[in-house]
Amino acid sequence: MKILGSYLCGAWSTGGATAGTLVNPATEEVLAEVRGAGSLGPAVAHARDRGGPALRGLTYAARGQVLAAMAKVIHGAREELIALAVANGGNTRGDAKFDIDGAAGTLAHYAELGARLGERRLLADGEPIQVGRTARMAGQHVWAPRPGVAVFVNAFNFPAWGIAEKAACALLAGMPVIAKPASATALVAHRLAELWVEAGCLPEGALQLLCGPAGDLLDHLRGPDVLSFTGSSDTARVLRGHPVVVAESVRVNVEADSLNAAVLGPDVELSSETGQLFLVDVVRDMTQKTGQKCTAIRRVMVPAARADEVCDAIRDRLAAIAVGDPAREDVRMGPVATAAQRRDVLAGIARLAEATASVHGGLGEVTPVGVPAGKGFFVGPVLRRTDDAAGCDALHDREVFGPVSTIAAYGGGAAEAAALVARGAGGLVASAYSDDRAWVTGFVAEAAGWNGRLYLGSQKMAAQSPGPGTALPHLLHGGPGRAGGGEELGGVRGVERYLQRCALEGDASVLKALVE
Amino acid sequence: MKILGSYLCGAWSTGGATAGTLVNPATEEVLAEVRGAGSLGPAVAHARDRGGPALRGLTYAARGQVLAAMAKVIHGAREELIALAVANGGNTRGDAKFDIDGAAGTLAHYAELGARLGERRLLADGEPIQVGRTARMAGQHVWAPRPGVAVFVNAFNFPAWGIAEKAACALLAGMPVIAKPASATALVAHRLAELWVEAGCLPEGALQLLCGPAGDLLDHLRGPDVLSFTGSSDTARVLRGHPVVVAESVRVNVEADSLNAAVLGPDVELSSETGQLFLVDVVRDMTQKTGQKCTAIRRVMVPAARADEVCDAIRDRLAAIAVGDPAREDVRMGPVATAAQRRDVLAGIARLAEATASVHGGLGEVTPVGVPAGKGFFVGPVLRRTDDAAGCDALHDREVFGPVSTIAAYGGGAAEAAALVARGAGGLVASAYSDDRAWVTGFVAEAAGWNGRLYLGSQKMAAQSPGPGTALPHLLHGGPGRAGGGEELGGVRGVERYLQRCALEGDASVLKALVE
Repeated sequence: MKILGSYLCGAWSTGGATAGTLVNPATEEVLAEVRGAGSLGPAVAHARDRGGPALRGLTYAARGQVLAAMAKVIHGAREELIALAVANGGNTRGDAKFDIDGAAGTLAHYAELGARLGERRLLADGEPIQVGRTARMAGQHVWAPRPGVAVFVNAFNFPAWGIAEKAACALLAGMPVIAKPASATALVAHRLAELWVEAGCLPEGALQLLCGPAGDLLDHLRGPDVLSFTGSSDTARVLRGHPVVVAESVRVNVEADSLNAAVLGPDVELSSETGQLFLVDVVRDMTQKTGQKCTAIRRVMVPAARADEVCDAIRDRLAAIAVGDPAREDVRMGPVATAAQRRDVLAGIARLAEATASVHGGLGEVTPVGVPAGKGFFVGPVLRRTDDAAGCDALHDREVFGPVSTIAAYGGGAAEAAALVARGAGGLVASAYSDDRAWVTGFVAEAAGWNGRLYLGSQKMAAQSPGPGTALPHLLHGGPGRAGGGEELGGVRGVERYLQRCALEGDASVLKALVE
Repeated sequence: MKILGSYLCGAWSTGGATAGTLVNPATEEVLAEVRGAGSLGPAVAHARDRGGPALRGLTYAARGQVLAAMAKVIHGAREELIALAVANGGNTRGDAKFDIDGAAGTLAHYAELGARLGERRLLADGEPIQVGRTARMAGQHVWAPRPGVAVFVNAFNFPAWGIAEKAACALLAGMPVIAKPASATALVAHRLAELWVEAGCLPEGALQLLCGPAGDLLDHLRGPDVLSFTGSSDTARVLRGHPVVVAESVRVNVEADSLNAAVLGPDVELSSETGQLFLVDVVRDMTQKTGQKCTAIRRVMVPAARADEVCDAIRDRLAAIAVGDPAREDVRMGPVATAAQRRDVLAGIARLAEATASVHGGLGEVTPVGVPAGKGFFVGPVLRRTDDAAGCDALHDREVFGPVSTIAAYGGGAAEAAALVARGAGGLVASAYSDDRAWVTGFVAEAAGWNGRLYLGSQKMAAQSPGPGTALPHLLHGGPGRAGGGEELGGVRGVERYLQRCALEGDASVLKALVE
């Protein structure tokens, strides 16, 4: 049995008692196991005492070079990593590329940002401010490295991108990282860490990997540390409410559940470029990664007059999706990642079914191609429908983390659409498809406060849109309320989550020299 | 008995059972009482349903006018408010002006910011970003109003400034406010709210005042809301860990304990302008508001060779401070605000006394002038000393919230000074007095990550410095770790704490029009 060890305190260790197994979710073949790691106090101390000073001693440009080296390592092992993702993640090759190329691309993006920020360690935040009678007495805000440790508790769905997008921001900020991938799909993150360690990309102590349970990790956190979590609202609650996290004012950055909505504007014909973009985006988000993207569209608001037409069009497209062993070239959608996920998704569909009508896929039953009978954590794509968007609580109050969406008819007004989006109680992304600028303006005014990102689909950008489900390194990823209240990525914004903002106050020429 | 009612749901109400009394802390004369308010669900709903939409309907310029009107009301009632602060807060006239003029000044500062932000409701955050193959496919971050309620739980020491500095930021952002002043000193905040209501400064529902216990207020909070707290770390822990706050991802902004340090650089002669600034700042912070400023200097790091001289100079100045009834013109320092505060401060001094030597004021015993024998919550100014700064845990691990500071000898190095500052585990402000730029640069590099503000005292700014203890509206107020991890003020930065950042993604010309 392969044991996924942890890289802690500068060495690989295999830990103690078995704490979980990793399987191929298409075949249920066991691939590896993870074990408990004992006290993590020494690992936290190692990050504080070795990794932190080493990183803070580098300039932004030099930290950017670290990230560039990490990206290069991923490129060099791309096929191996894709194969691991297909085996352990239920990913099609396309799904795996989305994760792995996304990881490399995000590291490369932040490597470039580091180069642009250059040979400095303090970043100016805004311009000098006169705070006295004359310009002599001044203020200057700066972003300074936080003298702590960045701890990541990552989600199962993006084992490569998940560690890379958080590490890119933390390392560029100068914070050492202890990353805990989700055990069920840890094969990719584990291999990535092996490759980075073998290549010597990072200063000692700058990156540690914990495979297996978090153990006492959070007990060792202190004020300058940052805890970044991606996963369910239930786990977010446990982490955010952890006594040490609360008592020490540990900075917490959470990305949790989100009932992402797509809204079709009343001006859009389905046959138009904008209408086709809408259909492509909905179907992609339902099926890519078997719907296991935190940004995937769960609620589809459609003007009542067009609801039948939309249902027909999406149903036709879903019917063409082959579900089965993602290692096969003819398969377009693999299983969900774990047995527990399958149970959750099926329970979520059953709950939706009490309040909505079936358009496609029933309750998720499916006969996958290319797998042993009865094996694998498969759920077929499921499209539901309600004509009472406002009255359907099940539509708005539970994220079903699989290939499941619901069409909801609405009246067509921008304010009504935004109010329905808001019923999700805070989201990562909402998308609106319209070429009517007044409608878009009205929608944005009401919806922006409820979401971390608004994707505005239109005729002019349709040809080069990545779709709402893609979290780009340039743009904020995170959202208020149910989505966790966190912020990641967004260029330098994501780096700032790992920095401390500090106001310098004093003689203007002294301040100027400090940020030059 | 005067009852301090609450202004909730558009009306003043006196509440139910008595929940506390307000006294004159110099004479212990009872001034008023506060009562319990029953369920606060209707008040939260009133803010959501009336105040929020009204404020979000205004542009930044119009919200700025609201703040300008609030500032004008304070100016118009300045003498009345000063008298209330002297009676209820133990404030000298100077202390009261610091609070009340600070409140008006902060509102005026944000009124001007509103005017500058102009006739818009969405603020651009940064420049447009190309995210596709061509510039056509773009991103634009914006700050949008959060569709929730801002709840303030305020500290006893700044009843006017405390409500004004938080309200300035929240109202300018477009969030309705429910403010709960600390009961013991609520007379000033209550009168302020009365004046604002009488003058009709604010849209209905935009500002509610809760005098008395918080009751079930937090139970009604949801994701878009913001909870802003200033006070002790113990209370911060309760609020941050509140089950509803945790479960709903309510944004929490905390300003808590801080063992603010002042460091004298090894280059500074006490007789120099920089040396004199240092002495003035330390003595001011020890005695202004009877040391009850969250920004006050608690730890004074002095090069060992100069420690005797500094002790002598500060002792001489403290000896000249008359302590007594703050209503008297000859009194320079009044009592602390409550009997409980006096107990806490005396206990803190006793703990310090186990590890430090007395320089002035012994254990805080004092015979106040102009008050009935045995009455009043008086503590005399206390200066302690240790020659083992690194070994003296009591110096670094408990904020004594009164007229108390400790001189700690250190070796003179910038890195050593910064490491001692860091022993406070996160602070609101640290100050360093030096005209040696290399020393200052070294200090800032190591200290900035541990503090929300660094005040750099030097010869060139000495003549116009406000001192480290003054929180200016232009500059960030807040700090990591023990200081609570929050951010307030800092110009538009403080407003952003009440906004939601959202990435807009789409056709570049559509995005441009949205933020014009």
